[in-house]
Amino acid sequence: MEIKDKLNFEEMPPEELKSILADLPLADILEEWDSFNTEEALKIMMNLPLEDKVDLLSALSKTEQEKLIESLSAQSLNQILSEMDPDDLTDFIQSVSPDVRKEAWNSLSEEAKKETLFLLRFDEEAAAGLMTPRYLAVRAGITVGQALAFVRKGAQEVETVYYIYILDELQRLLGIVSLRDLLTANDNVKINDIMETNYVSVHEDTDQEEVAKTLETYDLIAVPVVDSRNQLLGIVTFDDIIDVIREEHTEDTYKMGGMTGNIDRYLDSSIFSLVKKRVPWLIILLILGTITTNVVDHYSGLITAAAFLFIFMPVITQTGGNSGSQSSTLMIRGLATGEIHSRDAGKILLKEIAVGVSMGIITGTVIILRSYFLPPGVEFEQSIIIGVALAFVVLFSTLVGTLAPLLINRMGLDPTVMSAPLMATVIDVAGLTIYFEIARILLRL
Amino acid sequence: MEIKDKLNFEEMPPEELKSILADLPLADILEEWDSFNTEEALKIMMNLPLEDKVDLLSALSKTEQEKLIESLSAQSLNQILSEMDPDDLTDFIQSVSPDVRKEAWNSLSEEAKKETLFLLRFDEEAAAGLMTPRYLAVRAGITVGQALAFVRKGAQEVETVYYIYILDELQRLLGIVSLRDLLTANDNVKINDIMETNYVSVHEDTDQEEVAKTLETYDLIAVPVVDSRNQLLGIVTFDDIIDVIREEHTEDTYKMGGMTGNIDRYLDSSIFSLVKKRVPWLIILLILGTITTNVVDHYSGLITAAAFLFIFMPVITQTGGNSGSQSSTLMIRGLATGEIHSRDAGKILLKEIAVGVSMGIITGTVIILRSYFLPPGVEFEQSIIIGVALAFVVLFSTLVGTLAPLLINRMGLDPTVMSAPLMATVIDVAGLTIYFEIARILLRL
Repeated sequence: MEIKDKLNFEEMPPEELKSILADLPLADILEEWDSFNTEEALKIMMNLPLEDKVDLLSALSKTEQEKLIESLSAQSLNQILSEMDPDDLTDFIQSVSPDVRKEAWNSLSEEAKKETLFLLRFDEEAAAGLMTPRYLAVRAGITVGQALAFVRKGAQEVETVYYIYILDELQRLLGIVSLRDLLTANDNVKINDIMETNYVSVHEDTDQEEVAKTLETYDLIAVPVVDSRNQLLGIVTFDDIIDVIREEHTEDTYKMGGMTGNIDRYLDSSIFSLVKKRVPWLIILLILGTITTNVVDHYSGLITAAAFLFIFMPVITQTGGNSGSQSSTLMIRGLATGEIHSRDAGKILLKEIAVGVSMGIITGTVIILRSYFLPPGVEFEQSIIIGVALAFVVLFSTLVGTLAPLLINRMGLDPTVMSAPLMATVIDVAGLTIYFEIARILLRL
Repeated sequence: MEIKDKLNFEEMPPEELKSILADLPLADILEEWDSFNTEEALKIMMNLPLEDKVDLLSALSKTEQEKLIESLSAQSLNQILSEMDPDDLTDFIQSVSPDVRKEAWNSLSEEAKKETLFLLRFDEEAAAGLMTPRYLAVRAGITVGQALAFVRKGAQEVETVYYIYILDELQRLLGIVSLRDLLTANDNVKINDIMETNYVSVHEDTDQEEVAKTLETYDLIAVPVVDSRNQLLGIVTFDDIIDVIREEHTEDTYKMGGMTGNIDRYLDSSIFSLVKKRVPWLIILLILGTITTNVVDHYSGLITAAAFLFIFMPVITQTGGNSGSQSSTLMIRGLATGEIHSRDAGKILLKEIAVGVSMGIITGTVIILRSYFLPPGVEFEQSIIIGVALAFVVLFSTLVGTLAPLLINRMGLDPTVMSAPLMATVIDVAGLTIYFEIARILLRL
């Protein structure tokens, strides 16, 4: 049953609404969020448990957040914002429109304002931009029992209790104790006897993708962020890392679709910003692609002797583009996951030559059969020429698709640019040349 | 400095090797792993701290794992496997070759064999396939103090101590207490007074992608897996979820590159399996693409009156394909992240019409200027015909790229199939028809 049918906004007393909403998974409410009107949305928001209010607001899109906030009273807004984790609050403050930002800012407590201003100093895409300044820190001299008592007192204030950070007088990070290790140690052992001094940390400027890889490699719930003097600035928790991984995925997908990587939500984006995201690549590829007009023009003399060649142009370039983007996709993804390195180029190239030859023979055979037996229909000799030319185009495209991302990566650039659209355009130009040349040779023209 | 230069495998005494390796981040060792020969790799493995040995083995590719295991003594293998988490051990046992599997199996303890057999019963892609059966469970009647004492005793045995599960006599899940709540509660409070009974759980058959979304929505470190009688089978932890998110990302990327989603590591894949992954789509697209030969053949009569039309064919189809895949990429990604729903189709279509018209006008203008002023060069009237036709092809492609994924999703199918390669092929056929028709009308032929 849909949530909308369970709730009767007109007649239900608030208590009943509250109790139904408390039992509903937030994920289900979010799933149907678009189907509520502003008044219904506001009623849901007001009657959710406080913790869910915070999660709901964080999960909404920019425009939806703003719509909701404008209808909330200053008091309820204050209540929700004061429950947000400082890192989420900072993201929120940064993303909303100036009007809403002003209202939200005024409703913050002095402490929250201070924390937010501190976090706003850092680059959004770096480790420090993801961190929360609320963590548990103790001195090295205390005992496990004292530390546990401290954890029990401070647990509600911090984002995670699962690591305890040991700092010196200058706030420098000496070591880390996981709560698990703290719990299994004897109460009167000193913290500095059990703390891990060979800990993993990231620098405040470390790129968020690098932070994600660090957390993944070591299966950490949180990683400390330090400055160049090793002073602890904050911690990045796994939930923020999952968001980073999703964002990077979206960015990569957009780049592979021939767009800039800017990841605003589609429904939030204006027509102008959508055009701006798409038109640059479209024009670059168009201008590159017009080189094909020179290639075709160059071979236009063949039109009287071998008109059939022009009929097969689109399918030849398309198939070349497809096999090239298969290879480049494998390379780009392999480089991104760290499974492939530029130094493996030789090994990979040999493999792709074998793959390209096999696929060339298979696709060549298919097009020979298709073009000979089915309309428009060509002579047998003509179909052989097309088949052989296609096989070479496929082999060539496979190799370009393999080498281009590896080379670009070696040059220290992002290999994602060499994805399907650019690949297809490059192959259009070179593929047509190969196609016409092979045909010319076989036709002895 | 590279790790290889820091280590002197020939001369270093094992103690020195051990101490250098203990200080090196595992991520760095993994990064350079390919550069070590088998003997060096084995020496590194043998001298790593035990925990790193486990992480290293889990992180290696199938072939590398097998190479290493064949050179390890039965005793060291046993030591490493006994430290692995049961879910990782099960994955490992499933992925290695039969020979290595036999050797690994024989070196397992009786308890590990039992756990592994239990986990092997479940589907790898479902919640139960990701879970570990090692969690902390208590009865509802005990006090917080008793529970804490139990946690302190059991902490080393389980994968996570951060949630404590409360079960009845039939192993059914009654509630969950986070370690944080346990720590902040008073020692003599009863567990059932503080446990969360409105907890989030997943069913054993829940698809892994769904499990990932659940864990993300609620920012959980672990989620319990139950059967249809609500008996607790195990828990899925956040580190396994991060792996799932990465895997799904790779699968989607491959599909968008026109391949089957099978995600074996590239360097592990045989030439045959690479061809098998790529050739089916290549052939489907080739056969679909040959419809363009019928289209071009149909308009071949125009060749005497308007030969220039054939010269511009490749750039027209390419640009159509590019604008179509931009739209389809936005739709596919939006549907995957849950930001776009099929019910938004109307709103989206209006937006894309505006975007398509703008991009059509821009690309049309570019090609008019390019074709009129630069070689091969066409008449002004001809360049206008090409520009107008391109504008319509771009608008059409944008709309197909938008609607096709939304429709496919509405039909309950995976919209990822409508990615760049298939999009480009469909647009080739329809785009060429639009191109020639518009030209024919404008030329009054």
